[in-house]
Amino acid sequence: MARIRELGERRVVDMIMSRLEAMPSMPVPFWDDVSAIDIGQGRAVVLKTDMLVWSTDVPQGMSHYQAARKAVVMNISDLGAKGVAPTAVLVSLGLPRDLTSDLVEEMARGMNDGAREYGAYVVGGDTNETDDIIVSGMAYGLASIRRIMKRSGSQPGDLLATTGLFGNTGAAYQILLRGLEAPKKLRSSLVESVYTPKARVKEGLALAKRGAATSSMDSSDGLAMSLHDLSRSSGNGFRIEKLPLSSQAMEFAELHELDASDLVLYGGEEYELVFTVKPAYVTRAREALKAVGGELILIGSVTSEREVVLDVDGEVTRIEPVGWDHFTSKRS
Amino acid sequence: MARIRELGERRVVDMIMSRLEAMPSMPVPFWDDVSAIDIGQGRAVVLKTDMLVWSTDVPQGMSHYQAARKAVVMNISDLGAKGVAPTAVLVSLGLPRDLTSDLVEEMARGMNDGAREYGAYVVGGDTNETDDIIVSGMAYGLASIRRIMKRSGSQPGDLLATTGLFGNTGAAYQILLRGLEAPKKLRSSLVESVYTPKARVKEGLALAKRGAATSSMDSSDGLAMSLHDLSRSSGNGFRIEKLPLSSQAMEFAELHELDASDLVLYGGEEYELVFTVKPAYVTRAREALKAVGGELILIGSVTSEREVVLDVDGEVTRIEPVGWDHFTSKRS
Repeated sequence: MARIRELGERRVVDMIMSRLEAMPSMPVPFWDDVSAIDIGQGRAVVLKTDMLVWSTDVPQGMSHYQAARKAVVMNISDLGAKGVAPTAVLVSLGLPRDLTSDLVEEMARGMNDGAREYGAYVVGGDTNETDDIIVSGMAYGLASIRRIMKRSGSQPGDLLATTGLFGNTGAAYQILLRGLEAPKKLRSSLVESVYTPKARVKEGLALAKRGAATSSMDSSDGLAMSLHDLSRSSGNGFRIEKLPLSSQAMEFAELHELDASDLVLYGGEEYELVFTVKPAYVTRAREALKAVGGELILIGSVTSEREVVLDVDGEVTRIEPVGWDHFTSKRS
Repeated sequence: MARIRELGERRVVDMIMSRLEAMPSMPVPFWDDVSAIDIGQGRAVVLKTDMLVWSTDVPQGMSHYQAARKAVVMNISDLGAKGVAPTAVLVSLGLPRDLTSDLVEEMARGMNDGAREYGAYVVGGDTNETDDIIVSGMAYGLASIRRIMKRSGSQPGDLLATTGLFGNTGAAYQILLRGLEAPKKLRSSLVESVYTPKARVKEGLALAKRGAATSSMDSSDGLAMSLHDLSRSSGNGFRIEKLPLSSQAMEFAELHELDASDLVLYGGEEYELVFTVKPAYVTRAREALKAVGGELILIGSVTSEREVVLDVDGEVTRIEPVGWDHFTSKRS
């Protein structure tokens, strides 16, 4: 009998979903980032749940406050990426019995702050005894169904864009997991991207409100994997023509002679939006983002071939669906 | 610095809640069994999350199918107890990497069946790697705010009732955790109450629809603790005049010379509704329950003293707020 470490996370999820009866007429299909339930009058309740597990998800140096905040923010991010305003959060906590009360208080403050930063409130939850710290978050928002930005929806010829630059988290994991060094200021800026991720909620809402994007998701599984997920749902492919490389990641890559494109594509735990726009709507999308203090960074286009390629200066490289796999604990 | 095993679960929850900013005008207060968000027109989104942790919540002999089903049912039960129909369930799973795929399939079937039994669907979730199996469930329903049956709301003079008899789970834990024996048929019937709990959803909906109950909650923390929770929220007390003892629990208690009232009051993991009714509404409540195949069992009344007592044949005993505590792992 196969063990799930041999199958990998995505096949496990496939296996589970094949055993579930689908709710009739779901406004958002299975395999998108959120679940939605039609409540009539064109509106849907939108829900997301995602769990933070201390031993696998919390790198060294991350505080209990930061971990609890992140557990909330990562759920809120998925709503934001769909253009849905987060209203409420529930948190189910698993706590080891030897945890001290000051750390529990820190976690409570982190949960609260993670929600309040984006206009939501923690409205409920549950505590349990576990060996490892578990923070299972759930985010809720109410949305107009036609405004929900799904993973599908792009068309060949659409442009591919992001709300920010990549590579900082990838560099931070090189520091935190592999012990690579960096000058103090650079190090601090890089690890902060992992310790205190920001969700692009106002950006997602602005895009949805203007009907400016044809598809969207956050990049928490890494840019490469997110593009493959968008590809899987839309049936289209992507050509990246300009890597959205941050200057800090570039500096770090040069310092250690790393391939900067690896940091951009496979870092993960970034919460930028990756989205597609019709060419005629790019100005509208850019203005919508600018109005909320964000930016639109064009990185490529949607193609009809179902593959993801990097095409820089005429050199075409295939980008594989590589990201972190929880069960195999390797990139797969 | 205090460790949470010294504080106990309720003080930990208090501590967490004191760090949370409360959402303005919540239709259901903190400390009730569900969270509700006002969506206008007298309606609320009702949410509940509760986590099943294998090492603490799954007794010997319980299958993966049963555990996963229970993780869903225990969340659905809280909605049902409030008179809210469960529509959707999300499940965030923590799975050890050496788990075999057939057990994951069993769990997926259990989750699905737990939801479908009560008319809900599993609409989403998440998988993660953990050392112990964790099933963090979340249930959603849409409700008319005025129909939600809260913990508060009872008045002195109201009658106290349940939807069923107690003691089977208490007896089952004596068998499963302490190794006590019972004849095969009795044993099987008792442990089944723990392995395959039933939520009283149609009963809760019937009571809410008829406006028959002044307060209600499920008895998953045990009858004693549930009454203390109802007391805490309402400011009233309770006098139990007739213990709702099941015939199987009575048989088991006689077999082992146990105090049957302990099995009734402190068993826990029962999912009967404990609710209060105005005397003039008892017939209406009984008929509402009968119409859905349920029953109304009168066990006592609401008092103005904030305490819970057992008053049988003139002998009055105080019932302490004793239930299972996750962090101290003892009755507290």
